[in-house]
Amino acid sequence: MDFLVIGGDAAGMSAASRAKRNQPDMNVTVLEQTMDVSYSACGMPYNIADKDRDINDLVVRQAEVFRKKQDINLLTGCRAEALDPAGTVYAKDHRGKERQFHFDRLLIATGASPVMPDIEGVSLPGVLPLKQLSDGRNIKAFMKANPVHSAILVGMGYIGLEMAESLKARGLSVTGVTRGFMRNYDEQIAQVVREKLAAHDVALETGCRVEKIENTEDGLAVTCGSRTLTADMVLMGLGVRPNSGIARSAGLELGPGDSIAVDRRVETSASGIFSAGDCADAYHVVTGGKVWIPLALRANRAGWAAADNVCGKDVHLQGVAGSAVFKVFELEVARTGLSEGEAEAAGFDPVSVTIESRSRAHAHPGSTSIWVHMVGDKQSGRLLGAQMVGEEGVAHRIKAPTVALHSAMTVSDFAQTDLAYAPPFSPVWDPMLTAANQLIKKL
Amino acid sequence: MDFLVIGGDAAGMSAASRAKRNQPDMNVTVLEQTMDVSYSACGMPYNIADKDRDINDLVVRQAEVFRKKQDINLLTGCRAEALDPAGTVYAKDHRGKERQFHFDRLLIATGASPVMPDIEGVSLPGVLPLKQLSDGRNIKAFMKANPVHSAILVGMGYIGLEMAESLKARGLSVTGVTRGFMRNYDEQIAQVVREKLAAHDVALETGCRVEKIENTEDGLAVTCGSRTLTADMVLMGLGVRPNSGIARSAGLELGPGDSIAVDRRVETSASGIFSAGDCADAYHVVTGGKVWIPLALRANRAGWAAADNVCGKDVHLQGVAGSAVFKVFELEVARTGLSEGEAEAAGFDPVSVTIESRSRAHAHPGSTSIWVHMVGDKQSGRLLGAQMVGEEGVAHRIKAPTVALHSAMTVSDFAQTDLAYAPPFSPVWDPMLTAANQLIKKL
Repeated sequence: MDFLVIGGDAAGMSAASRAKRNQPDMNVTVLEQTMDVSYSACGMPYNIADKDRDINDLVVRQAEVFRKKQDINLLTGCRAEALDPAGTVYAKDHRGKERQFHFDRLLIATGASPVMPDIEGVSLPGVLPLKQLSDGRNIKAFMKANPVHSAILVGMGYIGLEMAESLKARGLSVTGVTRGFMRNYDEQIAQVVREKLAAHDVALETGCRVEKIENTEDGLAVTCGSRTLTADMVLMGLGVRPNSGIARSAGLELGPGDSIAVDRRVETSASGIFSAGDCADAYHVVTGGKVWIPLALRANRAGWAAADNVCGKDVHLQGVAGSAVFKVFELEVARTGLSEGEAEAAGFDPVSVTIESRSRAHAHPGSTSIWVHMVGDKQSGRLLGAQMVGEEGVAHRIKAPTVALHSAMTVSDFAQTDLAYAPPFSPVWDPMLTAANQLIKKL
Repeated sequence: MDFLVIGGDAAGMSAASRAKRNQPDMNVTVLEQTMDVSYSACGMPYNIADKDRDINDLVVRQAEVFRKKQDINLLTGCRAEALDPAGTVYAKDHRGKERQFHFDRLLIATGASPVMPDIEGVSLPGVLPLKQLSDGRNIKAFMKANPVHSAILVGMGYIGLEMAESLKARGLSVTGVTRGFMRNYDEQIAQVVREKLAAHDVALETGCRVEKIENTEDGLAVTCGSRTLTADMVLMGLGVRPNSGIARSAGLELGPGDSIAVDRRVETSASGIFSAGDCADAYHVVTGGKVWIPLALRANRAGWAAADNVCGKDVHLQGVAGSAVFKVFELEVARTGLSEGEAEAAGFDPVSVTIESRSRAHAHPGSTSIWVHMVGDKQSGRLLGAQMVGEEGVAHRIKAPTVALHSAMTVSDFAQTDLAYAPPFSPVWDPMLTAANQLIKKL
């Protein structure tokens, strides 16, 4: 059987490898338009923080390993251009030569591309996105070749926030320019992050839409409304768009944000054609509806599911819970499920609390603040979401409400959970239990 | 209404305070045999580690606060001696005077006492248990008054392990003497702890039952089998026994380990008499059976439930999941649910895996090993328990499988959970997901 994969990053290579493990005699071909496969995109801000680290450290497995050890027909520099759902992909190789690939089963794992606004100056040298490994390479090369003392981050999503820390570690002066700030987070949680940025001298210009970028004597001048900010480098972190063009042109059904719609088997509207990774949508375990939340775990998991289903298993994925975690300076920030606004939009009747507690027990040295925001549904009593911020114990704590969301647990049942206690790790009543106990009163 | 509470620690004072909050006009009396109320017993090893810290730092709320601000009739130095379930408790105050207390509702929160073996020398100066605040006070006083350069820990449960670290911080030479070592843990998890103790020069003598303790010229000589070990101080950490004598004498039903049997409303076999804290049993959420696992969160929670039920609410507790966490030197160690042996004893058909993964993503600096042991039931596919050890990310991670146990989740469903990922905190596939994926293959 010919299993063809478009895209050689997390979802695509996970699927290709697993298909070969499942059925070693399967004919597996991967078309990757860049020269890089299987790298940790999420690791880029941390790699950039250290000028001496090779960006190629982020490559998890070399192309040669896939080719020789795993017998995968991996073609880099080969771009899929069109798809005939009947069984053919039309591509161009790195020399521009047109090629055709037959498939019995196809996986579209084309990922996503950074949103670059259609404004003057986005193509100037020193104006760089951060999504692919080549972007990371370009940023490091630009910083090596030029005297870069300051940077403007356009967009302050996860990557923008992580890059703020990364560039401060490189000694730069950093300004973040953004329209909203952590809009899907509770205001108190966002405020803690805002104060941490200020404490590290990261300037924040909110309510800003960038209008143009110009080359001036003082560097790159970014104009937003009445303000003009100048820096040596401008990083664009305005989010990503799914690379769904090839699917759309072939008539495949699209989902939220023009991602590629898939069912629980990660199969698209065309039988035998699967999609996984940042280009595809997913079910949300809380709402039951479709969402497009392009993150790494889902990409890997969906890649595996695609391979298993291609190999004749019948794997169904429950979906995503909207979980995310990031680090910004000393803070860990995490969320799972729905924010209050998202819950309302999904038709729930949400109430929420935000509590401040401590990371360690009464009288235990080294304790810091931890904030927990929790959202519940007034009608059903269900837990709908949680958010947290603090200097310790946040990144892993969020996994408990995530599991609760997968089980459609009520806030009352969550409040009864036997969360392990020891003085170095929490008060006797874990901050999440305190939040749940408070939230119960409002339900 | 007269609400009488026997015992003024976590469960008793939680109940007394909550009853007064629920019904300010209620007549609430607490009888506490010691002079200390409401202290963090779990914090003692950490307090002892620092010779300059006052042991009274562990007191969460002073007796006077309960008396004056909360209007609780708190009698310290008053020991309950006998109980007539019809409505009277017979006690002796600190002068030895006999007193009687009437109750409409009673809470027995008498706690537990350290097991002191019936051998020669257990009453020698320098042979000390560690359970009550007074024990901590005695240990610190003994170390201040005597040149203590070495200690033997008899019993290496949680407190023994925490004290090993605590006494090393005080510069002592430390030997642990124990019959088994972490017997309810997977052997690989226990081995990681064993190696950590060795790395910190804590000697471990396993397979040892202490036969006598003698005062010699070289200090206290502990004899176990053919071995004799000598040290300046001997701490007894052989576990605790429930203080259920008063309940037993009154004809109340007992549970596992002679703890006081309670239903889901934490009511004993005698109507209107409740029990909470280290003296009482609990339902186990995995087996549905009774267990006696005396830990702080359950004590506080059961104290609240008792007060609520005394005040006419109808609060039912789900029970405990066997969760526990402790720190020993750089390691975090945690468990929840059943070990493989416990699962077998409870009638399940358990299979398990132990995997070693990393605490951070591929190529992320500072990553350390993390081991996850996971137990599932072959018949039902249910997750039965998990254990972990590692230098970071263990104490809070364990809360995810705990929530799963409360939901009777299958291993397959747990493997689908959307556990948030970022490079500083885990590989893309969280170590728990890797363990679950491995365990699925055996189920």
